[in-house]
Amino acid sequence: MNRYTLKISCLDKPSIISKLTSAISDLKGNITDLDQYSDSQTKNFFFRMMFKLEESNIPKLLTTIEAIKAIFGMKISLYQENTKKRILILCSKQQHCLIHLLGKVKQGAIPVEISHILSNHTDCEAIAAYHNVPFHHLPIEKDNKREQEILIERVIDENKIDYIVLARYMQILSSEFCKKYEGQIINIHHSFLPGFKGANPYKQAHERGVKIIGATSHFVTEDLDEGPIICQETIRVNHHHSVQELTRFGSDIESVVLSRAVKHVAEDKVFIDGKKTVVFK
Amino acid sequence: MNRYTLKISCLDKPSIISKLTSAISDLKGNITDLDQYSDSQTKNFFFRMMFKLEESNIPKLLTTIEAIKAIFGMKISLYQENTKKRILILCSKQQHCLIHLLGKVKQGAIPVEISHILSNHTDCEAIAAYHNVPFHHLPIEKDNKREQEILIERVIDENKIDYIVLARYMQILSSEFCKKYEGQIINIHHSFLPGFKGANPYKQAHERGVKIIGATSHFVTEDLDEGPIICQETIRVNHHHSVQELTRFGSDIESVVLSRAVKHVAEDKVFIDGKKTVVFK
Amino acid sequence: MNRYTLKISCLDKPSIISKLTSAISDLKGNITDLDQYSDSQTKNFFFRMMFKLEESNIPKLLTTIEAIKAIFGMKISLYQENTKKRILILCSKQQHCLIHLLGKVKQGAIPVEISHILSNHTDCEAIAAYHNVPFHHLPIEKDNKREQEILIERVIDENKIDYIVLARYMQILSSEFCKKYEGQIINIHHSFLPGFKGANPYKQAHERGVKIIGATSHFVTEDLDEGPIICQETIRVNHHHSVQELTRFGSDIESVVLSRAVKHVAEDKVFIDGKKTVVFK
Amino acid sequence: MNRYTLKISCLDKPSIISKLTSAISDLKGNITDLDQYSDSQTKNFFFRMMFKLEESNIPKLLTTIEAIKAIFGMKISLYQENTKKRILILCSKQQHCLIHLLGKVKQGAIPVEISHILSNHTDCEAIAAYHNVPFHHLPIEKDNKREQEILIERVIDENKIDYIVLARYMQILSSEFCKKYEGQIINIHHSFLPGFKGANPYKQAHERGVKIIGATSHFVTEDLDEGPIICQETIRVNHHHSVQELTRFGSDIESVVLSRAVKHVAEDKVFIDGKKTVVFK
Repeated sequence: MNRYTLKISCLDKPSIISKLTSAISDLKGNITDLDQYSDSQTKNFFFRMMFKLEESNIPKLLTTIEAIKAIFGMKISLYQENTKKRILILCSKQQHCLIHLLGKVKQGAIPVEISHILSNHTDCEAIAAYHNVPFHHLPIEKDNKREQEILIERVIDENKIDYIVLARYMQILSSEFCKKYEGQIINIHHSFLPGFKGANPYKQAHERGVKIIGATSHFVTEDLDEGPIICQETIRVNHHHSVQELTRFGSDIESVVLSRAVKHVAEDKVFIDGKKTVVFK
Repeated sequence: MNRYTLKISCLDKPSIISKLTSAISDLKGNITDLDQYSDSQTKNFFFRMMFKLEESNIPKLLTTIEAIKAIFGMKISLYQENTKKRILILCSKQQHCLIHLLGKVKQGAIPVEISHILSNHTDCEAIAAYHNVPFHHLPIEKDNKREQEILIERVIDENKIDYIVLARYMQILSSEFCKKYEGQIINIHHSFLPGFKGANPYKQAHERGVKIIGATSHFVTEDLDEGPIICQETIRVNHHHSVQELTRFGSDIESVVLSRAVKHVAEDKVFIDGKKTVVFK
Repeated sequence: MNRYTLKISCLDKPSIISKLTSAISDLKGNITDLDQYSDSQTKNFFFRMMFKLEESNIPKLLTTIEAIKAIFGMKISLYQENTKKRILILCSKQQHCLIHLLGKVKQGAIPVEISHILSNHTDCEAIAAYHNVPFHHLPIEKDNKREQEILIERVIDENKIDYIVLARYMQILSSEFCKKYEGQIINIHHSFLPGFKGANPYKQAHERGVKIIGATSHFVTEDLDEGPIICQETIRVNHHHSVQELTRFGSDIESVVLSRAVKHVAEDKVFIDGKKTVVFK
Repeated sequence: MNRYTLKISCLDKPSIISKLTSAISDLKGNITDLDQYSDSQTKNFFFRMMFKLEESNIPKLLTTIEAIKAIFGMKISLYQENTKKRILILCSKQQHCLIHLLGKVKQGAIPVEISHILSNHTDCEAIAAYHNVPFHHLPIEKDNKREQEILIERVIDENKIDYIVLARYMQILSSEFCKKYEGQIINIHHSFLPGFKGANPYKQAHERGVKIIGATSHFVTEDLDEGPIICQETIRVNHHHSVQELTRFGSDIESVVLSRAVKHVAEDKVFIDGKKTVVFK
């Protein structure tokens, strides 16, 4: 038997779960993991099921699911295990998030295939080469921002990219780009959002004299630093720490938080629920 | 419709989930929450489902469940929402865990009814009175240990106690007692188990020079400090802290960890899986 | 020999430390603890020294310190060990911060004497009585806010209060009051500032979908929720948690953070450095 | 003026601090940071002072310090700022700790010069090359263990190595080696010591069902996993996590904890105090 993951979202109605689980049971499959969540405010229903099934029974399952889908108006994704998500990484000068992510992927901890690394600088070229990932330099000037984005879009489209990961990419993406890939762009912001949005969050944190700093991974929307939050982490600091030291401390949690968010997304555990996310364990 | 929680454990076999969810669906009920876990090592299956159902359909559900139970050899518990677990608290001189737990229960955060507080000292009598919980003083001498335990057993049995909570109860319970109430006794140990078992864990931690201390809530078994762990928490310390300061710092996490464990258990989210626990979110 | 704590702040200049430590050494005293910090931005210097000295030598020490003070323009406080700070607690309906603080004081963990508990409600009266602390009910209506504050000021002045602790006091204090007791009022805000200032921070946090919530203790200034931060703590949450559950989770860290801030202040470890604090370990 | 760090330990006696700070003051220097700690149990005194001084005054300072040293029997180290500690890294197959450490050093966050990387495997050779650090492969068989250690000793001695960092080096070092470099070998153990000493700590943690795992950096002594602890970190886990997943989660905190310990040591903030450490902020 093969292993599959089924991911579903729709408006909550009775008997969805029994229909979906019976579909597996009727085909002599076996459910190995199941998570569901009903948001009592948005009335959205989210469902993720892992199961084993004879490959020959997949067409029958799809037929059943199509029938269920018609009733409930679902968004459905079905993946065979080991189908890795294809990601594109955008970065600038700083390498720590990129290095951590590449290390985790190499370790086998995150089921993604890294298609390309694109950057407006060349600082990350060597580490890309070390990991045998194609690297393209797309320098950004005042006037070529949108043009370069269009090149990025081409790479995304030609390489069937599932998710775009911004590993400390220091350019603000256009509204067109954000809309086109809504729910597919994962950013790391170097603060504990919603505190310290925008530029220089460590400088802001230093000026405010906070005793804890944080990092936030979120989906990118048109509203800067306002997209649905996937993952956050915090770390204790004190009056001794300069902006530079906050930056270095923070780099550790930025790396971990971004890698963790990419892992959750790659494992199909993340759903967007309005302005928030549902992240299954 | 009323709200119910169904809690099930058995050996893992295909189609359990679909049978259970269909049972609800067939009776026009609605599942509001579902958690399951299959332990790939022990082959145990754990299942917790919250659902709404017309009260008149409960007998039919029970009939169906009995049939399923017969097939799968399940341990089953079905509770109506708002059925509070009945607990007995044992404590000694220290009050911090007791006070925190009583506060949380008063706040409505933990669905339990505190039947009695028993103690081998009288230090906690006033706080029990403040919360209107019956308090009994059962002083323990060298020779009356088992006798006093038998009085405790009487209180447990007469008051239909579901769980016995040891809120820093400084007496070691007899094997007979531990066996009789296996899976029903919740202890707080003032260390990050398995580090620093036994007496004076803060003194042990101070001598070892650890940089983090912890607290552990676990089910009590005959093997001291070896029972299945429910909940743990840690807190950073440094070379400045004396044993006394570790003790005071630690008291905050002890309180929180014990209350959290009691909450999880009271909400039927905890299963014992051999020497470990499964704790649903 | 008696034990003393000397607390000093001034503009940073060379040889302050050697002058202060030599003063102790010359009088045959012994330094048991010393902390200092120079803020490279504000150029402020902060110093805390614990030492043992014959009581008969204190006048000589004071003479020396006065001479040093004249040179360096210092703010100086000298306390004999076991001189407890006198505090006034203001609270409203919620009791968790108050109960935790009273418990810690009883435990001997925080060297303060609680002079009075004042509240605009009567919910905390019983717990005050249990701890034998005088309680006054000062109900607040639309029109009597400033009048009641003046009664509070009278209690503060008549009882030589060092610090006013707002243990979830839900009234906004007037500018006059905030100015009069600047640096003496300690508040707990139920969010990770600067995120979620103002009313209903848990509701705000729920709407934003953060994955971690926090609590912040800070000195009160005229600008609401903008005063120097003393202490912060965070706790992980997820999509399952309702506003009510965030509130209950949060109450644990609010309690701990406020008690910790009061402890730091009572031990003379906290200095205000412009819009920030310096908190010695 | 140049910047210096003076690090001192001796038995605690009165007037050490005033003598040392006056020495700086008398030479028109300026103290920028000072930390001290007296262990009330061992009676040891630890002192670290950063100061600015004209280079021409250093001989005078040394003369004064020698005189003080004679009185108090001190261990003294004086470093000019920017004198980087020289380290040797030993590793085996796993790369995560090495990569993190190399990244931090490149970032400028840890003031060390990495002299060589030695390994009993070749897995880390490419990352060493990427960072331009000499790499030597010292394969270890049953019979050549001590011989290879002697080669390591030669590298240490010839290259004036200050600290040996074991970045997941999976070989147990001989007693001779441990003794020879006592206080100079920094290890990362992949558990929250003293829990789960010895082999396969993640497997042990999985079997015990802990809800939090940890990592510990410590000085190596002859007693395996018993040396003075420098730094620890913990991370929450749950019943879902397999041994493999614990291993991957743990790798993040191992990396951070080892880098942090090396940073503290390289900044002269760590003292060994019997079986414990004193780590200044």
